[in-house]
Amino acid sequence: MVFSSALLENAVNEFAKLPGIGKKTALRLVLHLIKQDVPEVENFSQIIAKMRSEIKFCSRCHNISDKEICNICSNPMRQQQLICVVENIRDVIAIESTQQFNGVYHVLGGIISPLDGIGPEQLTIDALVARIVPEETQEIIFALNPNIQGDTTIYYIGRKLKGIPVKITTIARGIAFGGELEYADEMTLAKSISNRIPVENYISSGR
Amino acid sequence: MVFSSALLENAVNEFAKLPGIGKKTALRLVLHLIKQDVPEVENFSQIIAKMRSEIKFCSRCHNISDKEICNICSNPMRQQQLICVVENIRDVIAIESTQQFNGVYHVLGGIISPLDGIGPEQLTIDALVARIVPEETQEIIFALNPNIQGDTTIYYIGRKLKGIPVKITTIARGIAFGGELEYADEMTLAKSISNRIPVENYISSGR
Repeated sequence: MVFSSALLENAVNEFAKLPGIGKKTALRLVLHLIKQDVPEVENFSQIIAKMRSEIKFCSRCHNISDKEICNICSNPMRQQQLICVVENIRDVIAIESTQQFNGVYHVLGGIISPLDGIGPEQLTIDALVARIVPEETQEIIFALNPNIQGDTTIYYIGRKLKGIPVKITTIARGIAFGGELEYADEMTLAKSISNRIPVENYISSGR
Repeated sequence: MVFSSALLENAVNEFAKLPGIGKKTALRLVLHLIKQDVPEVENFSQIIAKMRSEIKFCSRCHNISDKEICNICSNPMRQQQLICVVENIRDVIAIESTQQFNGVYHVLGGIISPLDGIGPEQLTIDALVARIVPEETQEIIFALNPNIQGDTTIYYIGRKLKGIPVKITTIARGIAFGGELEYADEMTLAKSISNRIPVENYISSGR
């Protein structure tokens, strides 16, 4: 792309650094901003800069936060003895959006994956283990993606927690609501049979 | 989407205002920025704000510009008597990227389209007509999209230029290089036959 304006070119190049944004999309975004009023674009720019410079990670659960301790951890209405362990911030947002979980979180910051060079020491596993006794945690729910890395991470943390009296569970794996048996993979179908639940539980769980 | 951080939520909402960027994509972009260093994100933010507050439109050709007169208009190496008329800035970038055109431009800022409520008075047509005599323009090339609106615009401007001794041309319409006759629409195929070119021209034009 050949630009006749350095201002335009620099702005397009900045947008094109973002993941999944190519030069053509970047140009479309910049031309859109040019059509907006100056104060509006200044506002956009300030909100982004402020977000980056002020954002923190909760010192307790490692979720993204505006303060030292995040809104979820500091909310007295939430069950502080129930910890949901997730891989990243995106998973916290997904679970919060269901409005079905009333405990707190622990964000691992990734998942054990030797092939990607990610070992337990790069994750917040030690911080999780250190929370359990002082916080008198009653239950840890693993909400990790159902794959080998997720299972490895659950197994590793489970071993670290040996001897500590805390209930350990994982989110149910099975046929997704609206899904069809016929198209489910064998692993999922097999697990959904071996982990079958009594129908009275199924009905009382609101389905 | 439920956020536990207002800083995050505001930033996501700002990105989601951009065209073609939904909430999920906006979140992905913001989480990417959070992973970058603070000065890098400040740089991003400043470049965008600076671009919007300092960008101008060339007073001669209405192209986007860093100065009162754009780089193309003020370049003495370019043929100032050859004006290529385009709909918008994106078209200037597309033609400049071919590196085949050495004249100057005139950006209409749109195209005559009564159905969308766009009439000639909303475009820079008067400014174009006013350029021709003082600039001693020899040729105007219309590089508009080949459709009814494009043809209407060419016809309207052509009538305005009646009596002014200037050559008026349009970019060739025909079967795209690499295209197949079989799949061309009838209109394009018909025009490519009625506007056929002698083979000597075809060969000398570098193909």
